[in-house]
Amino acid sequence: MKLHGIFPPVTTPFNQDGSLALDRLRENISRYNGTGVAGYVVIGSTGESVLLSRAEIEQVWAAAREAAADDKILIAGTGVDSTAETIDRTNRAAELGYHVALVKTPYYYKPQMTAEVHAEHYLRVADAARIPLLIYSVPQFTGVAVEAPLVARLGQHPNIIGIKESSGVVQRVGEILHLAPAGFQTLVGSATTFYPSMALGAVGGILAVADIFPELCVELYDACVAGDPARARARQERLLEPTMTLVAKLGIPGVKYAMDRVGYYGGPARRPLLPLNEAQRAESERVLEAVIGAGKSAD
Amino acid sequence: MKLHGIFPPVTTPFNQDGSLALDRLRENISRYNGTGVAGYVVIGSTGESVLLSRAEIEQVWAAAREAAADDKILIAGTGVDSTAETIDRTNRAAELGYHVALVKTPYYYKPQMTAEVHAEHYLRVADAARIPLLIYSVPQFTGVAVEAPLVARLGQHPNIIGIKESSGVVQRVGEILHLAPAGFQTLVGSATTFYPSMALGAVGGILAVADIFPELCVELYDACVAGDPARARARQERLLEPTMTLVAKLGIPGVKYAMDRVGYYGGPARRPLLPLNEAQRAESERVLEAVIGAGKSAD
Amino acid sequence: MKLHGIFPPVTTPFNQDGSLALDRLRENISRYNGTGVAGYVVIGSTGESVLLSRAEIEQVWAAAREAAADDKILIAGTGVDSTAETIDRTNRAAELGYHVALVKTPYYYKPQMTAEVHAEHYLRVADAARIPLLIYSVPQFTGVAVEAPLVARLGQHPNIIGIKESSGVVQRVGEILHLAPAGFQTLVGSATTFYPSMALGAVGGILAVADIFPELCVELYDACVAGDPARARARQERLLEPTMTLVAKLGIPGVKYAMDRVGYYGGPARRPLLPLNEAQRAESERVLEAVIGAGKSAD
Amino acid sequence: MKLHGIFPPVTTPFNQDGSLALDRLRENISRYNGTGVAGYVVIGSTGESVLLSRAEIEQVWAAAREAAADDKILIAGTGVDSTAETIDRTNRAAELGYHVALVKTPYYYKPQMTAEVHAEHYLRVADAARIPLLIYSVPQFTGVAVEAPLVARLGQHPNIIGIKESSGVVQRVGEILHLAPAGFQTLVGSATTFYPSMALGAVGGILAVADIFPELCVELYDACVAGDPARARARQERLLEPTMTLVAKLGIPGVKYAMDRVGYYGGPARRPLLPLNEAQRAESERVLEAVIGAGKSAD
Repeated sequence: MKLHGIFPPVTTPFNQDGSLALDRLRENISRYNGTGVAGYVVIGSTGESVLLSRAEIEQVWAAAREAAADDKILIAGTGVDSTAETIDRTNRAAELGYHVALVKTPYYYKPQMTAEVHAEHYLRVADAARIPLLIYSVPQFTGVAVEAPLVARLGQHPNIIGIKESSGVVQRVGEILHLAPAGFQTLVGSATTFYPSMALGAVGGILAVADIFPELCVELYDACVAGDPARARARQERLLEPTMTLVAKLGIPGVKYAMDRVGYYGGPARRPLLPLNEAQRAESERVLEAVIGAGKSAD
Repeated sequence: MKLHGIFPPVTTPFNQDGSLALDRLRENISRYNGTGVAGYVVIGSTGESVLLSRAEIEQVWAAAREAAADDKILIAGTGVDSTAETIDRTNRAAELGYHVALVKTPYYYKPQMTAEVHAEHYLRVADAARIPLLIYSVPQFTGVAVEAPLVARLGQHPNIIGIKESSGVVQRVGEILHLAPAGFQTLVGSATTFYPSMALGAVGGILAVADIFPELCVELYDACVAGDPARARARQERLLEPTMTLVAKLGIPGVKYAMDRVGYYGGPARRPLLPLNEAQRAESERVLEAVIGAGKSAD
Repeated sequence: MKLHGIFPPVTTPFNQDGSLALDRLRENISRYNGTGVAGYVVIGSTGESVLLSRAEIEQVWAAAREAAADDKILIAGTGVDSTAETIDRTNRAAELGYHVALVKTPYYYKPQMTAEVHAEHYLRVADAARIPLLIYSVPQFTGVAVEAPLVARLGQHPNIIGIKESSGVVQRVGEILHLAPAGFQTLVGSATTFYPSMALGAVGGILAVADIFPELCVELYDACVAGDPARARARQERLLEPTMTLVAKLGIPGVKYAMDRVGYYGGPARRPLLPLNEAQRAESERVLEAVIGAGKSAD
Repeated sequence: MKLHGIFPPVTTPFNQDGSLALDRLRENISRYNGTGVAGYVVIGSTGESVLLSRAEIEQVWAAAREAAADDKILIAGTGVDSTAETIDRTNRAAELGYHVALVKTPYYYKPQMTAEVHAEHYLRVADAARIPLLIYSVPQFTGVAVEAPLVARLGQHPNIIGIKESSGVVQRVGEILHLAPAGFQTLVGSATTFYPSMALGAVGGILAVADIFPELCVELYDACVAGDPARARARQERLLEPTMTLVAKLGIPGVKYAMDRVGYYGGPARRPLLPLNEAQRAESERVLEAVIGAGKSAD
């Protein structure tokens, strides 16, 4: 199972009343099908995983499965704090046709989330899962990180095939690549350090900014793989501000606002996330125009 | 609704197979009924809230309700990331007979969890809830804190009657007491700074260490209220090591281990939390003996 | 050597051209002599220790020595990163008549500043010093803290008689008081948690806000010692905003501005510290008026 | 003044009695003269700047100046907390023949070290300095960082020609490169992210690990400039463990120990820095052997 390339972690569309808008999800995915993305992450952090009930999550998985083109790899976000519930979600995603599970670290009881506890959790999930796993380390949301020695240890398990490393700490990416076994696949979650991470040996990215600009992300990936530093650097730089502003600062409401502006369905996020206020919309417009303008004049 | 005194945030007992042990919960509460505690928090962080399904949570609420003596105040932990789900849980707890809801801050999407987003969340929950609320700020688990100016603002809402401040930052407790409206009730979640917080004007505590040593906590509370610094200091000091070791370091498995040793049902925690290993059990024994020994020779 | 009570860490006055204004220092100290403060810290952090040359420091020590009343205890800030230079400064201060040295942790090479390195440093200084030492832990400036087990170990040395604990973390103060040997003296550097710290057993404070309001700090200390919680709480609350704003937020320029307003010589701080801008002056005025107003109507 | 390439921040050699060993310094530099390094930083953090007196610093500058080959660029570390003292040191270094000053951020009074205060400091130093400046941001020691918008603003000053960015945060390096004016030179201080930073447009590095392995660092630089990702990645990976262990974890005593082992004079660091203990020496040996062994079998 090769996970090379760009995977948008798709948003979960809602109607104005907050109910699931599954048709909008299918339409977004149909449109992404026409791009060079390698596949989709469904029910990741950007998919508002923590704001959905279990029943809703299964509806979203089913709808995305249905809409995805046959050549796209399907990754289900299945990790929650409970080990048992993580296993249950993972095997339900497998039944629904997902190829890989993205398993976020447990994190709530932080002082107890030692490397040993994380190891036991992942090994237990890996033993029970009917599809292979990616470790998912996202300290900006969870407050806990998976360090390279643990990744190297977990990478020995035949069912743990890689990691989504979202900390954006490039040294840590380098340590993982240095210590992990051959064939272990390191994907990154930080678009602002995508090219530097690829330079060290990462194989792809699960990038929220790819929900807005999938083709630009694919161009960046292609430039990295082709060994074209000037093109890679130019693409990397174009992604800097949208990632810092629309994704990191404004979060899901920022991503959805921008999606609406470039032809996808964004729509509202669920509460407590608030719609962009006027100043945030103006800031988003400036950033979007700069990216789109730069695209028109690009090499 | 006066929330003065000590409230144990009760643990959720499980059988060895991980299923709910509701009879053990009833027995624990029956025994706590005979102590001087003011009431109970059911489904707080110490109740493994994030490791239970919604259906299990309701079973636990019902069982605890049933077992609690009539003079005990019942507080339900109802806060989750989603505003709508928080409202739904709060009103379900109200139906089941709970007097107050303890509403944890939303926290997962940390960069978006501004004071404004928290304010909108709490005001919306407070408007919709059929019972009064306590704000619950616990940055050691959530990574986000509620600062005093926001507490002061939220305290204007007639349905937001207080806060459980668990950061252990005594200056912040002082700021809240300085800024909050008259009658707003500040309870603390940190046993190691309980007496200092009471000195500044806090009215009580929701203390995990009270699951193990309810009477010692009540003695500390009584000494604070009686204005007896020597007694308060001695009780405070006896609680220092069990809180640091059994609660803060070892977490729920440490609390449950100690409960088993002092006559309550502790039992296993749910995975990913692991049972204490041998070194941790030995450390727990040392701490328990020191507290119990000190109790025998106390004034 | 009893260090009970309030010690202002005196500012170092400068003329407008940046040169030392030693007469202004003598005048400030003369005026403090008439208050109930227990003594002075000269060349602490608030004395702009890191912005003075070694020669200037000795001039300041000599001038303060000369001006201090005979019943005031004199504490010299002597700690720098180098062990040898710390010893040299300490013994120079001893020659100049200082009673105690306040020895800040070395801190620049943070990853190497282990408990072992700090221990070796303090023991070496304590062996060589001709006056007793206070450990000085001030993580908000240094980025490193001294934890209670190390304090307890260092407290065994006959020449290490106490600590100035400036972190403001009340739990840590409690741990130090729990572990340190009998007779070890814990002073705190955080005015906002002075009463809570005294409640646990601290013996005094080295408080920058005492440069501005020495009598109010002495009243707070007296209320703590007298066991008068209502008076203590009222004084504690009056010190909250000036400490947060004038000391913590605005720093030395804020302290000096306020000193000028209440009859001491404040004058300019050295660059890179900038004079207060207009908004900061207005904020300072509001805070000063509130404290002074509250004083007029106080019990 | 082009600052492209590798600059070792040379260590300050001491005799066993702690006195300066200037001959050893000259010998080290003579040997570095034969490598491909672009120049030297003298009295940087690795030069134990904070453990030397001003008089010693001038002796070290003079000795290094004397020993350096004519084609090597000389950079003097001149930044201290005081603005006036920083200017004085900078112009003294200029008199001694240094080409560039490396000006560390003021940092002690952290809450006051706003962007505005840093800006005023740097602009004042730049106005007064007779040689051009590099900003020096090293948050792992100082606890404060210079963010990209301030770098961009300072880069407008004709006498501020670049930055040594030592945080190791590659996203921040990318932001600086994105915002800074054309011709502004970004050097990095983190060897573990050197290649990723060069990929984004950095022009060189001031790397403590180059004190031990100057040629390996030069090879890495050359591979980056030549656009040879495979060579760059291999060199980068070989530098990972020595940087993490000898530099980051063990600090100056680790760097000096390793220098002694590869033919330079390392010698003791000054107190409070302690010599490596037995376990640390064994760890260092393992790391050194791995690097040297990998070198023998390299492409």
